[in-house]
Parts: sequence; structure tokens; C-alpha cells
Amino acid sequence: MYNYPDLKNLVDKAIINLSYNTEAEKLIDPVKYILSIGGKRLRPVLALMACNLFNDKIDEAIMPATGLEVFHNFTLVHDDIMDQAAVRRNFPTVHSKWGISQAVLSGDVMAFIANDCFLQVPPRCLLKVFKVFNKTAIEVCAGQQLDIDFEKAMIVTQEEHSRMIELKTAVLLAASVKIGAIIGGADDKDSELLYEFGRNLGLAFQIQDDLLDIYGDVKVFGKIPGGDIIANKKTFLLVKAMEIASGNQLKQLQELFAIKDFDPEIKVKTVIGLYDQLNIKAVTENLANDYINSATSLLDKIGVDKERKKELAQITNSLIGRNR
Amino acid sequence: MYNYPDLKNLVDKAIINLSYNTEAEKLIDPVKYILSIGGKRLRPVLALMACNLFNDKIDEAIMPATGLEVFHNFTLVHDDIMDQAAVRRNFPTVHSKWGISQAVLSGDVMAFIANDCFLQVPPRCLLKVFKVFNKTAIEVCAGQQLDIDFEKAMIVTQEEHSRMIELKTAVLLAASVKIGAIIGGADDKDSELLYEFGRNLGLAFQIQDDLLDIYGDVKVFGKIPGGDIIANKKTFLLVKAMEIASGNQLKQLQELFAIKDFDPEIKVKTVIGLYDQLNIKAVTENLANDYINSATSLLDKIGVDKERKKELAQITNSLIGRNR
Repeated sequence: MYNYPDLKNLVDKAIINLSYNTEAEKLIDPVKYILSIGGKRLRPVLALMACNLFNDKIDEAIMPATGLEVFHNFTLVHDDIMDQAAVRRNFPTVHSKWGISQAVLSGDVMAFIANDCFLQVPPRCLLKVFKVFNKTAIEVCAGQQLDIDFEKAMIVTQEEHSRMIELKTAVLLAASVKIGAIIGGADDKDSELLYEFGRNLGLAFQIQDDLLDIYGDVKVFGKIPGGDIIANKKTFLLVKAMEIASGNQLKQLQELFAIKDFDPEIKVKTVIGLYDQLNIKAVTENLANDYINSATSLLDKIGVDKERKKELAQITNSLIGRNR
Repeated sequence: MYNYPDLKNLVDKAIINLSYNTEAEKLIDPVKYILSIGGKRLRPVLALMACNLFNDKIDEAIMPATGLEVFHNFTLVHDDIMDQAAVRRNFPTVHSKWGISQAVLSGDVMAFIANDCFLQVPPRCLLKVFKVFNKTAIEVCAGQQLDIDFEKAMIVTQEEHSRMIELKTAVLLAASVKIGAIIGGADDKDSELLYEFGRNLGLAFQIQDDLLDIYGDVKVFGKIPGGDIIANKKTFLLVKAMEIASGNQLKQLQELFAIKDFDPEIKVKTVIGLYDQLNIKAVTENLANDYINSATSLLDKIGVDKERKKELAQITNSLIGRNR
């Protein structure tokens, strides 16, 4: 059984060894850059863990796992253009370093580099795996679209918001474990269970991320709280607060997110104050825990020994109380 | 045997019938738009003609042929962002209609819609066809990169320029006929001959396009001559002129393309005057004819009856003297 550091190591090596085989070096410099500035390699690690549930040999899953990471980074490069984000993982974003045109083009080539990785899936399951990947890629684009649409919308329901983060984030985690499982030899029932496991894990992850932006320990997470509030991001917390609030509290919230050029410090403080009055932290933690519990019970149902599931269980459990 | 209008009709129908299957409608509106504003459907038609060389049934090639058109339009949407082009085929470009973010994202999803089309290739040749497509997609990105690089470069050799248009334009035509041939059941020798045929055809097409921009009949092509000159585009004509010119002529050319905000009319007139002195039209026509002749002799070598080749021969011959 491989653990997280083992698998991250394998993925890092595969990324370094990607052969780009092109005479247009400037095209590839941003690709190497975005792939080199870290990240947890969560998607490929999940794929390899899922493969490892069913198979001691995981070699056949390494290239498609790498493809998932390349695809994920492709979305980051292009999302950062759309979000006009200057910084990613404490480094300048691709477009702020090389300009928008280069970020569009180098992003594009990553989509086809990801394809190349998937074309290395064993022929016996190539079509099945590629279909899962490609359906997911289209869904991720749709998730980003909804995110853009919701930024402009005044009212977003919790249901709409959940669907957006499902498409933008959760389905790729779901596809990662499903792809790993298929390559590892899982049957359809277990592959589907793992897809649902990954989807719930992804939703929990995103909600935890939204929580950490405000309630995370600065010493642990290295970020000053409230970035999402300053950026007017429609997080789960804000959507829920808008849903629960009424009267003066609702009016205050609406004003805080409608008026531009608010003093950031005051804005963060006031919004957190309102969240506290509305008990948003507890409501959000409860929802995250619901997703974690669903993920756990789905993992329990997979038809392999409990011992083999311990790495995936550990990732799931690490989400509980992650903000403390 | 199918002719061009038959095949264009089949492709147009397949494009209209594409099912997008997404809840993010705003994502797809620009996709439908760019696919609806025409174009010759040259790549899918070439693919279907190549299939039809070897097989009376072309059904299996229709979806991948459609994928080639979707991919081509994906590159147009993103290239227009990079080139800051406001108009394409006499219609507003996607980014000038919907903004850059939307053009990036709707372009992205087209790459995966193209994948979806290729996943419908018959399993017996799925991997082979997808590899040809994906290698080509990466090359097309590299071609666009070289085009961007060359815009900033003062001196570009004819060899470098030819390689750029080969990657940016010709390889996709080459891949189109090769993919059609593989699906039609061609052997490796004929598939390769067709690839080379398509590559030469693509180079001839691009050079003819460069010629038409200046020497095309306004009544026939509906464009005022010299658009490429005004846009400072490094066409074959300019690259060749820079290569042949010396002394005062070279100095004049360099100045005309270095100084911004030149009076467009005077610039076009002066550049054409210099091209005439340097005999650029004849030199360029000779090169285009060389490529057309190569394409013709490659087509001759394909191991099927001459009668079956007449549609591809007609496309090739239509390029001769296209500016008259």
C-alpha cells in the first residue's frame, strides 16, 4: 500500500519527466512554471489511491493521474485570467508574469498534454476512462461559467451554489477516484461508489476552504482572514448568511457586498460580526460534516478489505476540524 | 462518391445536431455562434473525402470530421483574443461580443467537445486517430506561438516562416485527410501519402491567402487589399521581400513596418510598389505552384482508382490561379 507522500512523489516525478516535444519553447515555459509551483497533487494522489484499493500495481494509473493534475492546472491558468488574480500559491499567476495571450495559449496546450496522458491508459479501459475524464472536463467548464454568472447575480440559492461548487470542484475529485478505480480493475458498482465518495469529499473540501478563509488559523494557513469577503466571492458562508438573514441584517449584508471600495478591514470585521450573529460557522461546519459522513459511509461500502481503505479514510478524516 | 456540397451539407447537419448537454447555457451560446457563422468546413470535408477514397460508407468519419471543425473554431476563438481581432468572417469575434473571459471559457469547452467527437471514432482505430489529432492540436498551439514570436522579431527567414505556417495551418489539413483515410480503411502507406498531400495543400492554401490579401479581386473576395500590410502581419510576401531586398529598398521596408500610425493607404501603396520592384508576386506564385504540384503528385500515388480521387484533385486544382 502506498501512502500520500509516496504517491505525491511518484506524481511529482512523472510531471518532471513529461516530454513536451515541441520547438516552441516559449509555449512550454509557463506550463513548466505552473506545474512546478506546488500544490498538493490531490487529484492524482486520489486517483492512485483508488487504483491501489483494487490493485497492488499502480503503474498503469500514473500517466492518467498526471493528466488529471495537468488538466487541473490548465483550469487554474485560465480561471486566473477570468478572475484577474495576480497571485496563485504565493507566486505570480501565469498571465501576470507572461500576459493574457500567453496564458491563453499555454493553457490551451495543457488541455492537449492532458489528453496525451489519457491516451496512455491501457487499451482495455481507454474509452471508458477517457469518457469519464472528458465529461468531467465539460462539467468543470460549466462550473466556472456558473461561478461567473453568480458573481453578477444578487441572489444565489444554497442549492444553486452547491451545484456550482459540485461542477467546479467536486466532479474532478469524483472523476479522479473513479478513473483510478477503473484502471485498478474495480467493477461498475465500486467505481460508482467511489465517484460518489469523491463528490462528497470534494464538496466537503470546498466548504472547508470557504470556512478556512475566515476562521482558519493565520499561523497554520499563512493567509490573512477574509480574502473571499474582500473579493466579494459568493462562498457557502455568504450564500447561507443571505438565506438566513432578514430585516436589518440582510440590508447590511447586501450593502456590504454591493458598495465598491469599502475599507477592507472594516468590511471583513462587519461581515464576520454578521456571520457570528447568524451562527454561520456552526451551520457551515454541520454541512461539511454531513458531506464527510456521506463520504465515509460510501467508502465503507466498497468491496475491499478495510485495511486497504485506510489512506483514503485518512484524507477524509483530515477534513474534520481542519480549521482548528 | 460524395462531392463538396454533399459533404459540407452533412457536416453542417452534424454541427447543428451536436448535443451539448449542459446546464450552463451561457457557456454554449458563443460555441453555437462561432460554429454558425459559416466557414468553408474545409477540414471536415477533406476528412470525409479522404475516407470516401477508400470506402463508400463515410458515416463513421462524420463525428471525428465534425470534431476537426470544432477544434479549428476553438483555435479561431482563442487566436482572435490574442490577435485582438474585432471581426471574423464579417461577424464580430466572440470576445468582442461577449468579452475576453467568456471567449476563453467557451473556447475551452470547445476543445473538450472536439474530444467528445473523437471518442466516437470506431474502437478499432480510436487510439490511432486520437493520437494523430492530439499531436496535431499541440503542433497548432506551437504554430500560434511561433506566429506571436515572429510578430516581435525583426528578421524571420523564409524557412522559419514556412515552418510556422506549416504548424499553424498545414498540419491540421494534413491530419484531416489522414484521419479520414484511417477511418476509411487505408493502409499506413496511403495514410502517410495523404498526410503529405494535405500538408502541401495547406501550405499552398496559406500562401494563396497571403497573395489574395494584396492581389485578390475585390469584386470576388470582398476585401479591400492590404489588410495584412496594415496589420503588420509577417506574410510569406513580406518575409520573401525582406530576404530579397537590399540597400534602400530594405531600409524602406523596415521603416514601413517599424513606424506605427503610418497612413494606411500610403503604406499599402508603397509596400505593393516595393513588392512589384522585387517581383514578389511571381516568386510567391511559383512557390504556391510548387506545393500544388507536390500535392498533385502525392495524390497520384495513392493506391485507388483515379476516378475516386477527382474531388480531392478538384480542390487542389482550384488553388491554381485562384487570384484571377
